[in-house]
Amino acid sequence: MGVCVIGAGLSGLAAAYALRERGLDFVCLEKSPGVGGIWRRPSAGEPGPAYRALHLNSAKQLTGFESFPMGEEMPLYPSHRDMAVYLREFAERAGLLPYVEFRTEVVSIRQDPHGVWTVVSRDARGVESSRTFDQVVVASGHHDVPLLPNPLPAGAETFTGRVLHSMDYVDGAEFAGQRVVVVGLGASAVDIAADVSRHAERTVLSVRNGQHVVPKQLFGMSVDMIAVAPWFSSKSLPEQQEFIEEALRVARGPLTEYGLPEPPNRIFQSPVTVSDEILQRIRHGAVRPRPGIAELSGSTVRFTDGSAEEADALVFCTGFGWTMPFLPADHPAGGRGPVRLYRRVVDPERPGLYFLGLVRPVGSITRLVEAQARWVVRLVTGESMLPGADVMGKEIDGYLEGIGRRYGLSAGASVQVDVNGYLRQLAEA
Amino acid sequence: MGVCVIGAGLSGLAAAYALRERGLDFVCLEKSPGVGGIWRRPSAGEPGPAYRALHLNSAKQLTGFESFPMGEEMPLYPSHRDMAVYLREFAERAGLLPYVEFRTEVVSIRQDPHGVWTVVSRDARGVESSRTFDQVVVASGHHDVPLLPNPLPAGAETFTGRVLHSMDYVDGAEFAGQRVVVVGLGASAVDIAADVSRHAERTVLSVRNGQHVVPKQLFGMSVDMIAVAPWFSSKSLPEQQEFIEEALRVARGPLTEYGLPEPPNRIFQSPVTVSDEILQRIRHGAVRPRPGIAELSGSTVRFTDGSAEEADALVFCTGFGWTMPFLPADHPAGGRGPVRLYRRVVDPERPGLYFLGLVRPVGSITRLVEAQARWVVRLVTGESMLPGADVMGKEIDGYLEGIGRRYGLSAGASVQVDVNGYLRQLAEA
Repeated sequence: MGVCVIGAGLSGLAAAYALRERGLDFVCLEKSPGVGGIWRRPSAGEPGPAYRALHLNSAKQLTGFESFPMGEEMPLYPSHRDMAVYLREFAERAGLLPYVEFRTEVVSIRQDPHGVWTVVSRDARGVESSRTFDQVVVASGHHDVPLLPNPLPAGAETFTGRVLHSMDYVDGAEFAGQRVVVVGLGASAVDIAADVSRHAERTVLSVRNGQHVVPKQLFGMSVDMIAVAPWFSSKSLPEQQEFIEEALRVARGPLTEYGLPEPPNRIFQSPVTVSDEILQRIRHGAVRPRPGIAELSGSTVRFTDGSAEEADALVFCTGFGWTMPFLPADHPAGGRGPVRLYRRVVDPERPGLYFLGLVRPVGSITRLVEAQARWVVRLVTGESMLPGADVMGKEIDGYLEGIGRRYGLSAGASVQVDVNGYLRQLAEA
Repeated sequence: MGVCVIGAGLSGLAAAYALRERGLDFVCLEKSPGVGGIWRRPSAGEPGPAYRALHLNSAKQLTGFESFPMGEEMPLYPSHRDMAVYLREFAERAGLLPYVEFRTEVVSIRQDPHGVWTVVSRDARGVESSRTFDQVVVASGHHDVPLLPNPLPAGAETFTGRVLHSMDYVDGAEFAGQRVVVVGLGASAVDIAADVSRHAERTVLSVRNGQHVVPKQLFGMSVDMIAVAPWFSSKSLPEQQEFIEEALRVARGPLTEYGLPEPPNRIFQSPVTVSDEILQRIRHGAVRPRPGIAELSGSTVRFTDGSAEEADALVFCTGFGWTMPFLPADHPAGGRGPVRLYRRVVDPERPGLYFLGLVRPVGSITRLVEAQARWVVRLVTGESMLPGADVMGKEIDGYLEGIGRRYGLSAGASVQVDVNGYLRQLAEA
């Protein structure tokens, strides 16, 4: 019966690679016409989390698969297109394409009392079919639902401009000559504000909560490479904090100098946004920082400090959630509350159901997904064993308690992981 | 008879302000229809050294006049348009406009045996008129002649693409979908390469000689503000070098990491290019660094390392010279060799002839021009006196000897000045 992998993006391909390497029987179901997941979409002209100006914030050394390193010709920070081309090449070279059924959407998965999984899928012609598997690996991503502020700002219904989410954002040229308010301070917000500012008449960045804005590089090294370098990762957390904060004092100075709020906690204890561009655009007057939105009224956006801007468009870069409508109702990885998975992978109550790539690290997810895939393969082959459901439950409780203190317990927050600790945990699992 | 000021750009306005403040009789002749010099041109749609994406590399605190500081609403690094609006406001508020004759081009200036200056000018209708003055202040700028490599690369005559100088460059959108080679590593080269890279299919930056690429800010402070801060300027040169090199190690790392050549000398002893953008664009693969051009052939650009690129356009960002055709033939400030002016201002052989703004500092020129203007006014009123021609000649020789060792003795190199030392010298003059 074998394994069913759902999705052929970065995570699904990592699972397929690990399964094929061990000669295991599997099939990969992908609803779109190609591999690459969210990276495939911009060049295909489909909306998604990646916009035309997007370059990764993670270095190619950590973004490419270990078994297929990104080549010399690849820039340090690949573009979405570079990434799409790379993933397709990987799938071809690793011989994974014959295992992928394209344009095939999973409708439901359910488990019978003997533990057998039935996967119902619908092909390009709309025909549903049903197959059984020993295991199911869900690798369908977690960037498919645009999250908006809830509630929306007061008076949102009166706003006369265009309202969009970063998911709908393609290119700043669309906003030529307009007055645009970009909301947020995450990776999409700062990229989109910088991009818009090259076309719009006026670009405002509305920021409610401070985050650590960190350049892509320090010492000429990619910050994600620093994070995993032994000389750095062997330091204690306070030593790491002091080291990075000192470097940020030199390279950047206080965020209040740029009109941005300071984050509530020290580095590694508050969210981080990696950007080389946003602070420079602010210093050029091309992007104007403002606090959170207090109220919308007609074409006016009023901020919590009492200042106001006229706006033709409002771009909410307020993050992504996900749905996995094929899961059993109210499944605790379905995107509607804290994810409850043993080591962020294993459903403790449904043997044989695994989730790949359902984690949000600072930096590249690739090494994590590879390690998850290897672990899942060890579980499939029986080389590794899971503890009892109570032990798994306790691990999940402990994990969520820690994460809740730092980031809260929304679905998105609940899958935040620390790269080094998580990799160690997976290697031992 | 009074003073004739030639030009109503930044330097001419500084001269006019200083003259008017002391109630001296003067007239300002400006060939264009408005004040602002090179900053007026982009918004007026005229070619010039400023392109559409240009923002100053100097902080507003040092760029605005001391008597008319740039306001709160001005970004730290004003755009060319901000600068044009500011200069026009300055001229209006300071009551300088009534003294300016627009669309009036100076044809010649000459001195009679009694020291009286005759200025011949041509008005908008083409009518020439002749007036006499006691003094002439030349403030006509030094960015009006595009300098190309001499000789041009071998095979230049066979190149099938478009060849332009940064002077002709307006906007990267012109190069959408093209393959562009930008030549140089000065301020225009790095700005234009970054701008082109947002539109072109492929952008190459050809760099023959290394320069220090320095971010606009360190420690959250504008680098030009650091340079004039007492805590910094009171350090010895070796201390300053060590301090900045250490900060660059943190904020940037070695230039070879980015594929750029290291400069031949330490910081403050080799040319500096201030840019926040170019290194990031290189890291994104959006700008590809290459060494100097060895040869052109058809549509192929071959570099000195043997690599080659196909190109639709070649943008030489190889600097600017100037002509001052109204000067007596072979005048040593005319742009065709090392400038010989006492303290970069005074013609030692022609009493009453002064040059304003004919200096090239690292950072803003504004404070220098203001100090020059005040000195010229002291000379006009007789408060300050000049030494004999031999003393002035020796000062010039000494100056050029020092500059020649560091930058060579082209016209452009010969007007390089060190901000702090030069300001001290002018204050005492």
